Amino acid sequence: MALMTPEQFEKSLEELNPRIFMNGEVVADVRENRNTRTVVEANKASYAWALDERYSDIMTCHSPLIDDRVNRYTYISASNGDLVKKAEAGTFTSEMLGTCIYRCVGYDAFHSLAATTWEMDRDLGTDYNARFLEYLRMVQKKDLSVAGAVTEPRGSRDEKTVDWDDPYLSLRIVEKNNEGIVVNGAKINISGAYASHEMVVLPQAAHYQGEEDYAVAFATPVDAEGITFVCQYTPYSAERDQVADMEELGNPLYGQRETSMVIFDHVFIPWERVFHCGEYPYSVKLVTRFARTHRMTCGGTCKVGFMNLIIGAAKLIQEYKGMEKASHIKEQLAEMVVLRETARACGMAAAHRGSEEPEGSGVFLPDELMGNVSKLNVCNAFWRVMALAGDIGGGLVVTMPSIKELKNPAVKDYVEEYLGFGSDVPTENVMKVTKMLQNWTAGLHGVGTWHGAGPVMAQKIMLQRVIDYERDKNRVKEILNIS
Amino acid sequence: MALMTPEQFEKSLEELNPRIFMNGEVVADVRENRNTRTVVEANKASYAWALDERYSDIMTCHSPLIDDRVNRYTYISASNGDLVKKAEAGTFTSEMLGTCIYRCVGYDAFHSLAATTWEMDRDLGTDYNARFLEYLRMVQKKDLSVAGAVTEPRGSRDEKTVDWDDPYLSLRIVEKNNEGIVVNGAKINISGAYASHEMVVLPQAAHYQGEEDYAVAFATPVDAEGITFVCQYTPYSAERDQVADMEELGNPLYGQRETSMVIFDHVFIPWERVFHCGEYPYSVKLVTRFARTHRMTCGGTCKVGFMNLIIGAAKLIQEYKGMEKASHIKEQLAEMVVLRETARACGMAAAHRGSEEPEGSGVFLPDELMGNVSKLNVCNAFWRVMALAGDIGGGLVVTMPSIKELKNPAVKDYVEEYLGFGSDVPTENVMKVTKMLQNWTAGLHGVGTWHGAGPVMAQKIMLQRVIDYERDKNRVKEILNIS
Amino acid sequence: MALMTPEQFEKSLEELNPRIFMNGEVVADVRENRNTRTVVEANKASYAWALDERYSDIMTCHSPLIDDRVNRYTYISASNGDLVKKAEAGTFTSEMLGTCIYRCVGYDAFHSLAATTWEMDRDLGTDYNARFLEYLRMVQKKDLSVAGAVTEPRGSRDEKTVDWDDPYLSLRIVEKNNEGIVVNGAKINISGAYASHEMVVLPQAAHYQGEEDYAVAFATPVDAEGITFVCQYTPYSAERDQVADMEELGNPLYGQRETSMVIFDHVFIPWERVFHCGEYPYSVKLVTRFARTHRMTCGGTCKVGFMNLIIGAAKLIQEYKGMEKASHIKEQLAEMVVLRETARACGMAAAHRGSEEPEGSGVFLPDELMGNVSKLNVCNAFWRVMALAGDIGGGLVVTMPSIKELKNPAVKDYVEEYLGFGSDVPTENVMKVTKMLQNWTAGLHGVGTWHGAGPVMAQKIMLQRVIDYERDKNRVKEILNIS
Amino acid sequence: MALMTPEQFEKSLEELNPRIFMNGEVVADVRENRNTRTVVEANKASYAWALDERYSDIMTCHSPLIDDRVNRYTYISASNGDLVKKAEAGTFTSEMLGTCIYRCVGYDAFHSLAATTWEMDRDLGTDYNARFLEYLRMVQKKDLSVAGAVTEPRGSRDEKTVDWDDPYLSLRIVEKNNEGIVVNGAKINISGAYASHEMVVLPQAAHYQGEEDYAVAFATPVDAEGITFVCQYTPYSAERDQVADMEELGNPLYGQRETSMVIFDHVFIPWERVFHCGEYPYSVKLVTRFARTHRMTCGGTCKVGFMNLIIGAAKLIQEYKGMEKASHIKEQLAEMVVLRETARACGMAAAHRGSEEPEGSGVFLPDELMGNVSKLNVCNAFWRVMALAGDIGGGLVVTMPSIKELKNPAVKDYVEEYLGFGSDVPTENVMKVTKMLQNWTAGLHGVGTWHGAGPVMAQKIMLQRVIDYERDKNRVKEILNIS
Repeated sequence: MALMTPEQFEKSLEELNPRIFMNGEVVADVRENRNTRTVVEANKASYAWALDERYSDIMTCHSPLIDDRVNRYTYISASNGDLVKKAEAGTFTSEMLGTCIYRCVGYDAFHSLAATTWEMDRDLGTDYNARFLEYLRMVQKKDLSVAGAVTEPRGSRDEKTVDWDDPYLSLRIVEKNNEGIVVNGAKINISGAYASHEMVVLPQAAHYQGEEDYAVAFATPVDAEGITFVCQYTPYSAERDQVADMEELGNPLYGQRETSMVIFDHVFIPWERVFHCGEYPYSVKLVTRFARTHRMTCGGTCKVGFMNLIIGAAKLIQEYKGMEKASHIKEQLAEMVVLRETARACGMAAAHRGSEEPEGSGVFLPDELMGNVSKLNVCNAFWRVMALAGDIGGGLVVTMPSIKELKNPAVKDYVEEYLGFGSDVPTENVMKVTKMLQNWTAGLHGVGTWHGAGPVMAQKIMLQRVIDYERDKNRVKEILNIS
Repeated sequence: MALMTPEQFEKSLEELNPRIFMNGEVVADVRENRNTRTVVEANKASYAWALDERYSDIMTCHSPLIDDRVNRYTYISASNGDLVKKAEAGTFTSEMLGTCIYRCVGYDAFHSLAATTWEMDRDLGTDYNARFLEYLRMVQKKDLSVAGAVTEPRGSRDEKTVDWDDPYLSLRIVEKNNEGIVVNGAKINISGAYASHEMVVLPQAAHYQGEEDYAVAFATPVDAEGITFVCQYTPYSAERDQVADMEELGNPLYGQRETSMVIFDHVFIPWERVFHCGEYPYSVKLVTRFARTHRMTCGGTCKVGFMNLIIGAAKLIQEYKGMEKASHIKEQLAEMVVLRETARACGMAAAHRGSEEPEGSGVFLPDELMGNVSKLNVCNAFWRVMALAGDIGGGLVVTMPSIKELKNPAVKDYVEEYLGFGSDVPTENVMKVTKMLQNWTAGLHGVGTWHGAGPVMAQKIMLQRVIDYERDKNRVKEILNIS
Repeated sequence: MALMTPEQFEKSLEELNPRIFMNGEVVADVRENRNTRTVVEANKASYAWALDERYSDIMTCHSPLIDDRVNRYTYISASNGDLVKKAEAGTFTSEMLGTCIYRCVGYDAFHSLAATTWEMDRDLGTDYNARFLEYLRMVQKKDLSVAGAVTEPRGSRDEKTVDWDDPYLSLRIVEKNNEGIVVNGAKINISGAYASHEMVVLPQAAHYQGEEDYAVAFATPVDAEGITFVCQYTPYSAERDQVADMEELGNPLYGQRETSMVIFDHVFIPWERVFHCGEYPYSVKLVTRFARTHRMTCGGTCKVGFMNLIIGAAKLIQEYKGMEKASHIKEQLAEMVVLRETARACGMAAAHRGSEEPEGSGVFLPDELMGNVSKLNVCNAFWRVMALAGDIGGGLVVTMPSIKELKNPAVKDYVEEYLGFGSDVPTENVMKVTKMLQNWTAGLHGVGTWHGAGPVMAQKIMLQRVIDYERDKNRVKEILNIS
Repeated sequence: MALMTPEQFEKSLEELNPRIFMNGEVVADVRENRNTRTVVEANKASYAWALDERYSDIMTCHSPLIDDRVNRYTYISASNGDLVKKAEAGTFTSEMLGTCIYRCVGYDAFHSLAATTWEMDRDLGTDYNARFLEYLRMVQKKDLSVAGAVTEPRGSRDEKTVDWDDPYLSLRIVEKNNEGIVVNGAKINISGAYASHEMVVLPQAAHYQGEEDYAVAFATPVDAEGITFVCQYTPYSAERDQVADMEELGNPLYGQRETSMVIFDHVFIPWERVFHCGEYPYSVKLVTRFARTHRMTCGGTCKVGFMNLIIGAAKLIQEYKGMEKASHIKEQLAEMVVLRETARACGMAAAHRGSEEPEGSGVFLPDELMGNVSKLNVCNAFWRVMALAGDIGGGLVVTMPSIKELKNPAVKDYVEEYLGFGSDVPTENVMKVTKMLQNWTAGLHGVGTWHGAGPVMAQKIMLQRVIDYERDKNRVKEILNIS
């Protein structure tokens, strides 16, 4: 069987040597740095679940490509049933981790690449699809973790890409030769790529004739020469770097969604890993098919898992405080559940109503309208869930002392007494759950959720493109007997 | 085949003679009174669609009970696939009518009766289920329209039912004898029953020992002795009564959701039509199973159809006004679509996640959590859709002159010129679509949508009962290593 | 003293002979037609209050222009204190009437005309201000009711006014001569003008050179030759026309906001009543100063009075139903109060922060930013208040039978019993309050409130013009030590 | 004159020696610890502004109590004009600091103490008011910073205070003697007290007879024996502790709202500083008058200042990104302005409608209804502003690398190029403004704003107490002619 053990995964990272910087310093080993370690743990978990019979149905499936059982995150959905499973996997991984499963961007990019390389080959006679499938076969066989990279700095939206002063604000081809291509540019907001084996890269700013050099998609090992990762560094990063015992953190093992800028400084890509090169009318298709897939993921699946944790933590705090009967808290919890179930429903609907795209390709993508609806809803819902959970958590969510004070003899008894709310659970539990709520409601998740898979405006633009009003207009005309 | 033609349906009403009052006067024939006529038309359409091959898949299905094709609105769902079809039918009928399909309350009550009579028989050794199925067999064979009746005036919620000064504020048994029972009381807000053949009645206020007389469910012809219908009468009723040409109305043929109070003054019900009689612990099950079914209908299916019409009308007005490029209108239209698709998604999810209830009964009901979520969402969404459509429709939605002015030689030219917005469609079209928007945004639909299948608080109460927090709490504890 | 009695006002209408059509027929006397009568009653009340010592402080003030006490609705605010009184008057009249005080548009137009004629005279050497003040002096001395008219059909917003196929979609000058001007066009959505003595008219679509003929403001008697009123006709109009006893209506005496289209077909205006004629750069000032004044009125004052009534009615129904302890209803009532007080606060702030405009003119206008904020907030708040009141009112808000049934011997006892909810108040009271809630929540008020003084988009556009971000940007730069 | 210079203030802290712990360690000097230092800076600024002629009108006023100019934060409002100035000061300080002015809780507690001690003396013949005024005179003369402390851990809300297992979950008197009283207990969420001279303490849980020991209010130096501060420690604390150059932080000088638990372990309070002792019916008055005052502050004044900064930062980012023309961003900015101005309007209205309380006391408090409305609105508005600003800021708000990378030779050029968005401002500016947005939208402010001055439910409870419905009900009855 193709599946790696988690230990094999960790071991496999040893062989990679990506160039990484965080907070002004080099990260020599992603397994050692406390913040990059969280990404290693999250990806590692995905290997463990695949081998755990409790979860193997959701985390693995049979791939006709290699005729073997593979990790679902390397598999292209071929039916509505697959899409439903995909949605369920998104919820499962996020409620298990409390952070990103870093393989999901690559997983969704695979869908877009499968569909669009097939279409280019059909329309243009290229052989991208074969190349891509060969690559995917290797990924499945070796059970690799593959990150995805789309977002770019970009210049002024009022100007064409080719008119920007700095030609590298979108990633582009700077050289082509017999062996392959050389690219330059940067991707930003890239989730966890440095602790993956591979990265697939999609174009973002090729729109018009003359912008062929921006029309490029490819795969690369994360430690290819010329690639540099500059990691995010937030207050939460500082806290993890500084804390004595990681059990005192709001998400001890898996931490925050960790991202980085990825700079491509003259990076060589051999032809067999180039899946799109110059055919600019297909660039937007690569992006929108990725978005179509990823919006179901970010809107209707992974946030459902996060909300499970937020709701669970809020419920626990309600009980610890002896507020089980407080009707306003019960109502707030129910409001969170309504928002969560609405997200789940939209995700499910996107899967159930998904379709083969393009027809004949064998690739199934979620329903575009519903996927956008789910993401747009969740952008707002998540902030509301944060507000409600923050209410239930109380002021201590932002004012609590370090859990370390429980080991400080000078104040230990005070903290035990006064932050336990007279509850019969240990004060440490109260503080840990409050710390988890801090993590969810007083940190990176509101903005992160909003922008993941594109902000609200991106969904609105797509909605304008896909909504069909004709049917509704005609129904009105019939009822009113007008023409 | 069991199916009636629309003409047969209309003819069949001749044989019924319900006692009806509207606006202080008797309604001698439901087919003649302009307002009750709209109910006749809506029900009649349901017979036409069943025989129309374009719609027969959605409007009919095979019933094992009589081994024949029946109108779906007489059929008990026996699988998730049936529930999905049921949801689709709800959207279809409402977008065709622009008002209630008056058979849906009975349809949903059938589900509750099928499940709960089965359960009573299993638990108590009664034979209600056989009686009910015999009744349903007759309904299917004769292809009858069956209304449902649940809501009652009720007295103070702070007192028990048996403690109310007026014992008839909830419908109750006042006599039992060898032939059957005699009931007294009233049902309010009852949709369109007077133009149906039959009515099934569920209990609403039997909760405790001593309240057995309130624990009663049964079926009755609508013209049984002792039944009186006192119809709603709204500004829209007055308008329909008074208008010269019904084409000038916002929904010419099908009008508003028409309801009435139904008074039961010593009405006799023979035993073979009594499906629940004194077993008070099952009364609440009859109500909640009905609500569970009906909330999917009202929340996730029929309002989707209404929103189709509202969106279609708003889009037409945008075009008539030459505002196709106005980005704020495009965004408002898209917001309406998002609300509609969210409603649809929740309805679909309620169907897909529905389950057999009780296990072994063969009756499938929508998922209770999701059904409540869908209704709760739609309560708020519908008001928002009204606000948005009202914006696009413009002030004329409430200030427009009568369409009759187009035939008034004194002002015809003025109205033609100034209410056409310089558009190249006839001013009559502009006025008719505006009139339809008046119907949707300046009339009965906001409050009606809110209260149909119970107001928001009813959903909130049910959510408190069905949400399970244990799983979420446990996930949090695992992540935080606490117990 | 200049003030008319209400009887004198009614008498004065006899002398006017406006040309009016409603529902395809001529309205011979505004005092007789049931729907136009409501406007007469509302205006009449404004004369009564002015002479009622309980209300004279709010409804009258001293005018230096004629050195006498005048009705406040003929007075130009000359201080922030005046603006505060103006705001209070707006709330007072609307809570007394439950509908428009039809003199408010003229009142607000006076403010714009006073400011802008002064400015034109200062800038251009015209003598419009003197003309206008002379006119106003006459209005004050005779204590006339003066309506205002601004909104027009208009053509495509993507084209210039002069490029519209139909040159009359905005009102324009078609002739000038020694005696005056002749105008052609139409105004729509005009509140209650036909039962006023006079009408002041502002331009709406003169923007560019070449559009001078559209740059016109003037006053005219409502029965000038060539003026035709085509009245709105809604379901509520039909109901009033048809009802036996007007006490059965939701607002018995004052009814709905009644409007009409006003057609100007070659109407002659003598020079002394022309206040703007060709100076197109000042047209937009006339409109925006009117809007600035009217948005405080519609956003922060009159809707407060309406909400008082809605809240009062909802509270009564809560009590009639014996639901005083229901915490969700208490919370809904409080939410309505919060929305009302927020509206009041914004209106008050617009008055307190108002300023002389233009400097030196002596005319005080509300703060433009705050006025727009108040209207924008109320657009959304009013729909929410409708939803909440509709919830408390219950399904009967849209399903109640005619109150006439209480006099129908066949069903009287049933209705008495079952719609009284076991309350000890007469069922008639329950039904009347429910009918009032129908008026507020199932009729014209949502759309009407939204569009009065311009829809949300109009406020958003104005906000873009008046918000100043520089101060906030500079504060950020200082804190961050950047330049 | 009574006013200290900022240098004198800093010097004065030397003489205090409070017992403070943070993150498991002792804080020897509040001026040295990086996190407590931010509180010193904020309070210090309040001394500087008082002496700065640009701000002295807002930051100082004449106190009749000592017949001298005093810092406004030591002054009791004696008119609506004073309340308006108080509101303006709240906005001014918060937009200057970007964090709490830590003197405001004490300032608001002074208002409550002045009113309630006056009332107790009048009703009970005590002499608390004289004591309090003597104390306040000293505060004004010495120009002291005085913090306030109200919130307590408290036990189960379903039990009476005296029935809690742990009697110290609310602060209480444990001894009384000739010199004074001894108190035990804790206050939580206390803003910045350790860098003030004094602290005034109000009761929170004395409600019934038998709970006299919990009915206690007093003043104390912050370094009285038995007082221990256990400081909050958040990710933002860790970041400040760890950063190389504080200019890289989102609010370099003034940081976050810093709070602590304050433990009172047998703290002695001499009688002349005891202002309430056992008179339990007045405890709730002390709390509600404080809340009434503080809700205007937190709802309608200081958040306005914060929103100024958020709006300014979002506007700058829009410009840096070359998105000035993006209409959706313009609209989002305007939405933030609307929320800000609504908050301002409610605060202003609370001041303008404030009243003397109790009558005759000379103490003016904001309008209770409007104060609660303003806080309740802002709880929701602030989260929305965060969401909008987070949208405009982009994903980098949570994914940006450390600003330190600009000094890292290995990646400096990459970061300069790719995070500058092709803008002509230095990349450092873009990063600093983004970092400020991180501070506002991805940190402590949502939850902090919600809970400051009590969460939404506290406002809702108070609204239930103060709303008067009688007037509205009567108006409805008059219109409907019912009694």
